[in-house]
Amino acid sequence: LPKEYAIIVAGGKGTRMGGATPKQFLSLAGKPLILHTIEAFTSYSQDLEIILVLPDDQLDTWRSIAEKYAVGKSIQVVVGGETRFRSVRNGLQKINDGLVAIHDGVRPLVSRDIIKNGFELAQRHGAAVACVPLKDSIRLLYPGSSKSVDRSSFRLIQTPQVFSAPLIKAAYGSVEDKGITDDASVAERAGHAIHLYDGSYENIKITTPEDLMIADAFLKAKAGL
Amino acid sequence: LPKEYAIIVAGGKGTRMGGATPKQFLSLAGKPLILHTIEAFTSYSQDLEIILVLPDDQLDTWRSIAEKYAVGKSIQVVVGGETRFRSVRNGLQKINDGLVAIHDGVRPLVSRDIIKNGFELAQRHGAAVACVPLKDSIRLLYPGSSKSVDRSSFRLIQTPQVFSAPLIKAAYGSVEDKGITDDASVAERAGHAIHLYDGSYENIKITTPEDLMIADAFLKAKAGL
Repeated sequence: LPKEYAIIVAGGKGTRMGGATPKQFLSLAGKPLILHTIEAFTSYSQDLEIILVLPDDQLDTWRSIAEKYAVGKSIQVVVGGETRFRSVRNGLQKINDGLVAIHDGVRPLVSRDIIKNGFELAQRHGAAVACVPLKDSIRLLYPGSSKSVDRSSFRLIQTPQVFSAPLIKAAYGSVEDKGITDDASVAERAGHAIHLYDGSYENIKITTPEDLMIADAFLKAKAGL
Repeated sequence: LPKEYAIIVAGGKGTRMGGATPKQFLSLAGKPLILHTIEAFTSYSQDLEIILVLPDDQLDTWRSIAEKYAVGKSIQVVVGGETRFRSVRNGLQKINDGLVAIHDGVRPLVSRDIIKNGFELAQRHGAAVACVPLKDSIRLLYPGSSKSVDRSSFRLIQTPQVFSAPLIKAAYGSVEDKGITDDASVAERAGHAIHLYDGSYENIKITTPEDLMIADAFLKAKAGL
C-alpha cells in the first residue's frame, strides 16, 4: 500500500471572525477547532503522517495546545507562506511519494469515510476531490447584469483533495498561484483530470461566527445532546 | 406607496426530510417552521398581504395550525400546483398591482432588512433578488470530466425575489416552466434584468434534517440561549 500523508492547512488570521484568535484555534465543543480536524485524520488511520501548516507567529500557540492536549508528537509542523498556494507548496516539500490529502484546517467535521474514499479514489485516479451538489440556484455575474445558469451542472468543492504525491508536487512546482483557490485547480492547470466524489453538507468550512455555531450544533447532534 | 404582497410557497411533501411531516410543518424552536416564515413578513409590515400557497392535502393541517396559534385570519391560502412554477402562478392570480415578494416557505430566518431592501429595490428596478457570494470553490461538470470556474463570478440565489406584480405576472403567463428553479429565471426569460442584492448566510432553505438543526442553532443564538 502507498504511504499516506495529510497536509492540514491552517493559514487563517481570524479577521473574518471578528476576533484576535485565529479561527483554527477557536473553541469548538470544548477544545481548539484544529484538534477536531486533526482527530478526524488520526481516527481514519494511525499510520497517516500529518503535516500541519501554520503561520510563523502561531507556532507558539500550537506548541502550547499540543502540550495541553497531549497531541502533536507525531505531527510535523511547517511554516506557511503568504498565500494558501505557498502554504501548501511548503507542506509538499516534506513529501516525496505515496498519496497526500490536502485539507482545510477549518473543516473539522470531515468524516472518516470521506477521507477513506479520497485516498482510495486518488490511488486509482491520481486526483480525487470531495464535493457536494448546489442546493440553491446560482447566477453568473457579468458587467452590469447577471444570468441564471443550470445549478445541476456545478459542484461545490470541499476538501480533502487527495492526490498522488508526485503528481501534485510537480503541479505545484510548475503552476503560478494567481487566482487559484484550491488544489484541484493547480492539478488541473498542470493537465490532470480531477475525479470528483461525494463529500457531505456537514463538512463545512468555518469562516464566520455562524459557521462555528453550525459546527457546534452538528457536534452536539452527533453526541446525542 | 405601492401595495405590497408576499407569496409564501410551501409545496414540500417532506420526502427529503425522511419523515411523513411536510418540512414546512416541522417543529422549529417550539412551533411549526412555516409560522417563523410568516412572522418574518408580518414583523416587516402589518399592511403586507400574505398569500400562502400549499398543496391541497395540507389545507387541513394549516387550518389547525392557524387556529392553534391564532394566526391566519389575514392570510389568504391558495392551492399549489404540481411544480413550484405552477404554485407561484396560482399565487400570482390573487394579485394585480403593486409589488410582490415571492419567498420559500422553508426559509424561516429571513430578516426584516432583507425583506425591506427587496421591496425598495423592486420598486426602483422592477426585479430584486437576494443572493450571497459562494464561500467554496466550484467546478463545472461536463461529460466525463469537470473544470474549475471563478467562484467570484457567481452568486447563490435566495428568496425573497421581489418584483413589480404586473411584470412577474406577465412573465409567468408567457414562459414555460421547464427546468426553471427560481422566479428570477422566469423574469429573465421574459426579457427583464434582475437586480441582485445582499441576502445573508443565515437565510437558509431548510431541506434536510441538518438544515433544521442549523436553523435551531441560529434561533437559539438570536434568543441569547
